[in-house]
Amino acid sequence: MTSDHANRGPEIISRGRVEALSDGVFAIVVTLLVLEITVPHVAEHESMAELARALWTLAPKFASWVISFVTVCVIWLNHHRLLAMVSRIDNGLFWLNANLLLWTSFIPFPTALMGDYPANRLAVSFYGWVMFLASLGFVLVRGHLHRRPDLLQEDVDRATFRTGTMYSIAMGPVAYAIGAGLAWVQVGAFIWYGAIVCYFVLPHSMRGAPLSGRTQP
Amino acid sequence: MTSDHANRGPEIISRGRVEALSDGVFAIVVTLLVLEITVPHVAEHESMAELARALWTLAPKFASWVISFVTVCVIWLNHHRLLAMVSRIDNGLFWLNANLLLWTSFIPFPTALMGDYPANRLAVSFYGWVMFLASLGFVLVRGHLHRRPDLLQEDVDRATFRTGTMYSIAMGPVAYAIGAGLAWVQVGAFIWYGAIVCYFVLPHSMRGAPLSGRTQP
Amino acid sequence: MTSDHANRGPEIISRGRVEALSDGVFAIVVTLLVLEITVPHVAEHESMAELARALWTLAPKFASWVISFVTVCVIWLNHHRLLAMVSRIDNGLFWLNANLLLWTSFIPFPTALMGDYPANRLAVSFYGWVMFLASLGFVLVRGHLHRRPDLLQEDVDRATFRTGTMYSIAMGPVAYAIGAGLAWVQVGAFIWYGAIVCYFVLPHSMRGAPLSGRTQP
Amino acid sequence: MTSDHANRGPEIISRGRVEALSDGVFAIVVTLLVLEITVPHVAEHESMAELARALWTLAPKFASWVISFVTVCVIWLNHHRLLAMVSRIDNGLFWLNANLLLWTSFIPFPTALMGDYPANRLAVSFYGWVMFLASLGFVLVRGHLHRRPDLLQEDVDRATFRTGTMYSIAMGPVAYAIGAGLAWVQVGAFIWYGAIVCYFVLPHSMRGAPLSGRTQP
Repeated sequence: MTSDHANRGPEIISRGRVEALSDGVFAIVVTLLVLEITVPHVAEHESMAELARALWTLAPKFASWVISFVTVCVIWLNHHRLLAMVSRIDNGLFWLNANLLLWTSFIPFPTALMGDYPANRLAVSFYGWVMFLASLGFVLVRGHLHRRPDLLQEDVDRATFRTGTMYSIAMGPVAYAIGAGLAWVQVGAFIWYGAIVCYFVLPHSMRGAPLSGRTQP
Repeated sequence: MTSDHANRGPEIISRGRVEALSDGVFAIVVTLLVLEITVPHVAEHESMAELARALWTLAPKFASWVISFVTVCVIWLNHHRLLAMVSRIDNGLFWLNANLLLWTSFIPFPTALMGDYPANRLAVSFYGWVMFLASLGFVLVRGHLHRRPDLLQEDVDRATFRTGTMYSIAMGPVAYAIGAGLAWVQVGAFIWYGAIVCYFVLPHSMRGAPLSGRTQP
Repeated sequence: MTSDHANRGPEIISRGRVEALSDGVFAIVVTLLVLEITVPHVAEHESMAELARALWTLAPKFASWVISFVTVCVIWLNHHRLLAMVSRIDNGLFWLNANLLLWTSFIPFPTALMGDYPANRLAVSFYGWVMFLASLGFVLVRGHLHRRPDLLQEDVDRATFRTGTMYSIAMGPVAYAIGAGLAWVQVGAFIWYGAIVCYFVLPHSMRGAPLSGRTQP
Repeated sequence: MTSDHANRGPEIISRGRVEALSDGVFAIVVTLLVLEITVPHVAEHESMAELARALWTLAPKFASWVISFVTVCVIWLNHHRLLAMVSRIDNGLFWLNANLLLWTSFIPFPTALMGDYPANRLAVSFYGWVMFLASLGFVLVRGHLHRRPDLLQEDVDRATFRTGTMYSIAMGPVAYAIGAGLAWVQVGAFIWYGAIVCYFVLPHSMRGAPLSGRTQP
């Protein structure tokens, strides 16, 4: 509250409540994903073989669910790291964050689409483009912070922040545009999407560089 | 907790938990909106042309989803600004806030209705009336604070707060009543609803006046 | 954290996180209720008359939605007031609170049932019995606090707390058992359920006595 | 914020926001469970006998809903106790926690499957295996804390923590593997699943030992 009072200017939005809204959206998206997998209908209720076959046909839905679940966790983690560097939120940052939430909250749709039509190139490509827009959302937030460095906390090193932005362009929009392109050529893009999230799950020491803008040994 | 103790009177409701409840409702509404867009059924699973056509017919649903998403963000932002001016919550304020949450939580229904029947004047008008009631909810909360200025924080300027109320009447119920009326005459009201939210997304400097009641340079 | 440390005994559960879990459940239930109202199917997409008729048949669903929305708000409010009197949460209190959340999270089902079959006495009575169990949940929580007054905060007056329990029995399980009974005889119980929530929405000064156990002027 | 600043190293994730994300997921899962129970269709709208019969056939769905509701509460409680012992969250702990959330968020699917096919051994066994994986998630989190005891708070007794891990293996993966195996032989595994959660609901004094790693009298 006290820090909030101090920041009162023409545009004051509490970082805590923006985090709460964002966390709420992330938690709900991650949990809603499973609702897209509906229980299969089986004629003979007690037949294990029939149910096993029905569950097996759901395999692409399970796969796209896992990929999206981990992707939303990665978004949460990157969002957490990014907001930890922010000291104040202005109107522009709020709306760029809302744009990020918009595409994140949309993820259940392309996930279900790709799970229902795993052999349809458009469906697999569509997934990649939505992720492209979601990860572009991060780049736009970072771009705003480059223009308005006064919104950043004082201990954030500008050079490292710039490197972090480069990485988030490469591992975000660029990676997903390649995936969406691959989907057009052949359906293996599914694996590419999985590979992107694996990069983020790896420990920092095994990645090339940190994604955040903090000096890290 | 300590400030809570100090405020103990016949009607004490913690502002923090009311904010948590409201934020929860906003986060869930904003995320549930996408559930109203269901994956289209396509006979030939691998046909990209057929899927493209099916997705294209969903265009009005995507449009109403985006408008509602941004609208709920605007509601969140205005709610945040309004509650930041409140020091205590009495029974009346709680229930007027609950009324606001009621209409906000209803938004997925008119959104789906307008998305399913974009050429039906009643559906488009219905959307406007729900938004009319949601924005009227804000005016009612403000009205209560005009009657009970002791619930406001001490540094809130009464004259500016009054101006803010005038603006929230004009850009809320009045704007949506016009939109709902336009829908009756012709279906272009869709664009009007989009225009209303655009006003709120614009930076403060480009709008006429602040919506909050705080003296802002 | 510090207060948490102080309370470390055989059974320590942080009140903050129990409140967060409960608030989450309340916020989600209140928002999910609207999902039970599905957009009607209309053959002629542009026919306003047909859509108006279809919306009109949804009237009982809208009514049961509003009643349940306000009921969950009342549950939230009573839960907030009750937990504000609690200083520590033991295992028993956690599970009695979980029982309350169980019945609260169940509310979307009887709401949809009553909305779909408003003229079916079993459906209307079923709604009353679920509310009976939810409000009994409050009485059980209060009963536990009567047996373990050390869990209450020190400034809670025991006599007033006892009166509050009497009121929560009368306005909870007893009121809903009467409603569920009325439903069996005739369908007007719908109105009775609405009347119960109205009692709670009324300002304190217009009710007989406070429901909480705090000495209130 | 201050403690966060102190912990800044190569991998810093705020415990508060991980708890918020986890609590969000738990609250949503517990509330979404009821959405899997859909209102039955009854030809004669006013027939109480027909509706009673339709509700009766939902009995297995109600039973699996209650078991899963209590199970998620147990997960919440164990998660709460485990995180209360953690002082810092590194990348590995974040992803092992995400794995736990993944399986927890999946619970609505096996719950609906077991509720729809209570007499199908595969469906009942499937439920057990998902719970096996969810409870294995706890063991993996604990395993990470055994390898990285610097992430634990200083007052956590290592020997008791080890005992807690033994108990969480026995009452988690082992218990559910037995249940899933029983399901293969005969369908009574339903009761076994109920029995497992009952163990956790029992007061500490009636159980053999605490599940947490804190010295408790």
